[in-house]
Amino acid sequence: MTSENGASPRPVAGPADDSFHVFDTTLRDGAQREGINLTVADKLTIARYLDEFGVGFIEGGWPGANPRDTEFFARARQEIDFQNAQLVAFGATRRAGGSAAEDPQVKALLDSGAPVVTLVAKSHDRHVELALRTTLDENLEMVRDTVAHLRAQGRRVFVDCEHFFDGYKANPDYAKAVVRAAHEAGADVVVLCDTNGGMLPAQVQAVVATVLADTGARLGVHAQDDTGCAVANTLAAVDAGATHVQCTANGYGERVGNANLFPVVAALELKYGKKVLPDGALAEMTRISHAIAEVVNLTPSTHQPYVGVSAFAHKAGLHASAIKVDPDLYQHIDPERVGNTMRMLVSDMAGRASIELKGKELGVDLGGDRALVARVVERVKERELQGYTYEAADASFELLLRAEAEGRARRYFRTESWRAITENRPDGTHANEATVKLWAKGERILATAEGNGPVNALDRALRTALERIYPQLAKFELVDYKVRILEGRHGTESTTRVLVTTSDGNGEWSTVGVGENVIAASWQAVEDAFTYGLLRAGVDPAE
Amino acid sequence: MTSENGASPRPVAGPADDSFHVFDTTLRDGAQREGINLTVADKLTIARYLDEFGVGFIEGGWPGANPRDTEFFARARQEIDFQNAQLVAFGATRRAGGSAAEDPQVKALLDSGAPVVTLVAKSHDRHVELALRTTLDENLEMVRDTVAHLRAQGRRVFVDCEHFFDGYKANPDYAKAVVRAAHEAGADVVVLCDTNGGMLPAQVQAVVATVLADTGARLGVHAQDDTGCAVANTLAAVDAGATHVQCTANGYGERVGNANLFPVVAALELKYGKKVLPDGALAEMTRISHAIAEVVNLTPSTHQPYVGVSAFAHKAGLHASAIKVDPDLYQHIDPERVGNTMRMLVSDMAGRASIELKGKELGVDLGGDRALVARVVERVKERELQGYTYEAADASFELLLRAEAEGRARRYFRTESWRAITENRPDGTHANEATVKLWAKGERILATAEGNGPVNALDRALRTALERIYPQLAKFELVDYKVRILEGRHGTESTTRVLVTTSDGNGEWSTVGVGENVIAASWQAVEDAFTYGLLRAGVDPAE
Repeated sequence: MTSENGASPRPVAGPADDSFHVFDTTLRDGAQREGINLTVADKLTIARYLDEFGVGFIEGGWPGANPRDTEFFARARQEIDFQNAQLVAFGATRRAGGSAAEDPQVKALLDSGAPVVTLVAKSHDRHVELALRTTLDENLEMVRDTVAHLRAQGRRVFVDCEHFFDGYKANPDYAKAVVRAAHEAGADVVVLCDTNGGMLPAQVQAVVATVLADTGARLGVHAQDDTGCAVANTLAAVDAGATHVQCTANGYGERVGNANLFPVVAALELKYGKKVLPDGALAEMTRISHAIAEVVNLTPSTHQPYVGVSAFAHKAGLHASAIKVDPDLYQHIDPERVGNTMRMLVSDMAGRASIELKGKELGVDLGGDRALVARVVERVKERELQGYTYEAADASFELLLRAEAEGRARRYFRTESWRAITENRPDGTHANEATVKLWAKGERILATAEGNGPVNALDRALRTALERIYPQLAKFELVDYKVRILEGRHGTESTTRVLVTTSDGNGEWSTVGVGENVIAASWQAVEDAFTYGLLRAGVDPAE
Repeated sequence: MTSENGASPRPVAGPADDSFHVFDTTLRDGAQREGINLTVADKLTIARYLDEFGVGFIEGGWPGANPRDTEFFARARQEIDFQNAQLVAFGATRRAGGSAAEDPQVKALLDSGAPVVTLVAKSHDRHVELALRTTLDENLEMVRDTVAHLRAQGRRVFVDCEHFFDGYKANPDYAKAVVRAAHEAGADVVVLCDTNGGMLPAQVQAVVATVLADTGARLGVHAQDDTGCAVANTLAAVDAGATHVQCTANGYGERVGNANLFPVVAALELKYGKKVLPDGALAEMTRISHAIAEVVNLTPSTHQPYVGVSAFAHKAGLHASAIKVDPDLYQHIDPERVGNTMRMLVSDMAGRASIELKGKELGVDLGGDRALVARVVERVKERELQGYTYEAADASFELLLRAEAEGRARRYFRTESWRAITENRPDGTHANEATVKLWAKGERILATAEGNGPVNALDRALRTALERIYPQLAKFELVDYKVRILEGRHGTESTTRVLVTTSDGNGEWSTVGVGENVIAASWQAVEDAFTYGLLRAGVDPAE
């Protein structure tokens, strides 16, 4: 391997070049992750993102095994105009004692219309005997027959050797015999799978090198992350000569997960100097990672390598002062190369340097005023002690900063009181009603609204009260709402922190509220969101 | 490296043996993670857990740099009776142009009373010049002088070479000169740090091997996870001869995080056959990982290797049927070795086999009744479509299962209606009041209660209404409460899912509720929690 700055970069292989495969299995193996449950529409959306990112192969599912996957292949062929990827159908070798030509499961693979088929084959002798309940010889025949039949029907075939590394440990000759059977029957790539995920990189490298030398087959790798080494195991296989890597977006997959597509591809492009994506695609990686998380309805991991919001975030005062000198001293790559950005975090560990940098980022110059910076640091410490966090609530932090800098808080309205009622009626329907009483521009305003929940009702009541005076509010929309219970072992008596993201169509901002209950905390976050939105719109503060 | 089942296990080194160091820096480097903010009490609690787990060294912080860390060292010495670990103070080499004996920062390290000191030293030439603003020679002198002074005062000294790998790439001779200076001045271990986290395992292994051969110093490794390879990088350094690994619990740390203590130690013990923990400690790993997450107030990562609740969870129908034959075919280790357990997940991808296994796990025999299993699968699919999840709500699943098996739902009470009011008064105080109207044992009961939030008020009103009829309720306590907004891009109009964990002092159970707002969803989860708790207590259902 050669590094980003290394002396002997490998020959460049473009994505249209078949010499190296980035193979994505988010839609098949990734969907095994606990908590993921994809509709056909979800699968189509994810396939579009993966194609845009530029993977060479998208494994879409197991047609025939469930109606959702069959429908996905039918619709993907009609609805998606793939620019980079080929669609792959996943299935198993034919049943023991039958023939591939008459196997209904094999037929469903052909019916899917996918130009490429990945066949899963057993390569661990105990699995053949105990799980498949057939002989070792018949298993080899099942591989040969199924590969040859699919090849005869004009399909490209990859063979996934399930449990390969455990099988190789138990019976290396048999494991290699499966690789040879697949290779000789016409499989283009034989993929060595660490299905149970127990391997470490040095072991993977040794096994892949031996199998490559002994069989002459083109090899791929499929790693699971049970030792926390899936990315490294994938790269170790590449070091040993594998030219096909199977990954999933964000590392989704069963148990701990699969090899994460994003750090694998980033390492290949940025550390190996190996071009595996179309031009410009790497810079879309952060956006595409987050978009896929959105579709599968999982919060994007904040600490994911390269693409997490924390991946280039700096907190410690020690680093913050050095970063002012030269950011490259403290980053392994320029975050813009993967579409991410450096962030300075505001926290009570931060010294003056971080607060000044953060102020600059927000366009508030604090450079000259040491006393002011010290006051802001104090104020942040105080609030964080109460449960606030400004790391994910830039808008609330900017309001705090401006309040200190300007000597008073920006206020467009003053709340006198509010009330929210949620009712479950005897007929099973719910009613939510909120009333707010507030002052704005010298006027006392009362407003009541209904909503589908108490927070929604309060949000609507606040809009109703204010929109005559501040018509800009009409454009505000709450686009994300997160609740976190602090001190999690005290059940409903805990402190609650709410983070709200609001949009005005041109941009988004995030605010925080903390309170002894979810309604009170939400109210604070919504108040800040409205205040910041009006500030952002250039409205003059006036109570 | 040799595997768990390998032929030539390395010589066993017990934890009391100094030949291999497990060095934890959760309290110092781990605390840099975004969102972590530790009090002195938190640090003491975590130190106790780490000592119980059996790490050899606990880096407690930077005494003198902030008052919290100074206080931690003072209190840890008095309050903790360490069984396995030695306390380590972290600090920097003396200032340029001064003397270690007169450096106030160095003096604070001695004043901490810690028997071991880790000194951070610059080893990258550009960092010396730009961040430290001194000469390369003076930096070497700073290392020698500080190490020698601390040694003369009876301290054991480890030296962290910051940015070592980047420095080695830029100027290998200077990087090695820093290692030699530390080694010759009396440092016991020189730790090569991948501070920016950009390395890959093969590179780490090559550099560590060369530095070891060229300097003869005892080497350690400190890896950050920016490429997703921190665990593998740590093991690669061990493969090359490093005998000291620096890690953090759950991989906490700045940006993406540090090398995760748990998979590193598990790999050493289970894959290398190298004893690095006291007897029995590994089996406490899952509990200790979760306990530390609790203290730092971060939700434990469900997908963390070895210790995540999903780490040994099986979902796919394919696997589930094979697992009935032999669980070891589908697990890289026995989960009990790390204190975790195998789980069968209930999800709409699950076939009959998973539902049957899950039933068995819960003590409900479904073996003979195929129609019943099919009905349960259908019902789970239906509910999951609405937003329910049973993967983390075993008690709600058991209620569903019993309702299908017994032909009707267990019901101890029937809710007629409820109402929750949250009010923010003009004086700034909050009031929360809830009223429930229900039927139990033929009686109509009305109850009203106050609480610190609307859910708490509803919980109390429900108890008030029922506790005369079901005195068992008095023991129930809500111990955890989680809110998740589904379809996260629709703000407060989204569907809300609530997971509640309830305890009766002998055990805990989890229930789920889904609704258009947080109050309605919470009510459902609390209703299920009370129902399951009464079932668990052996109370006869009777409306």
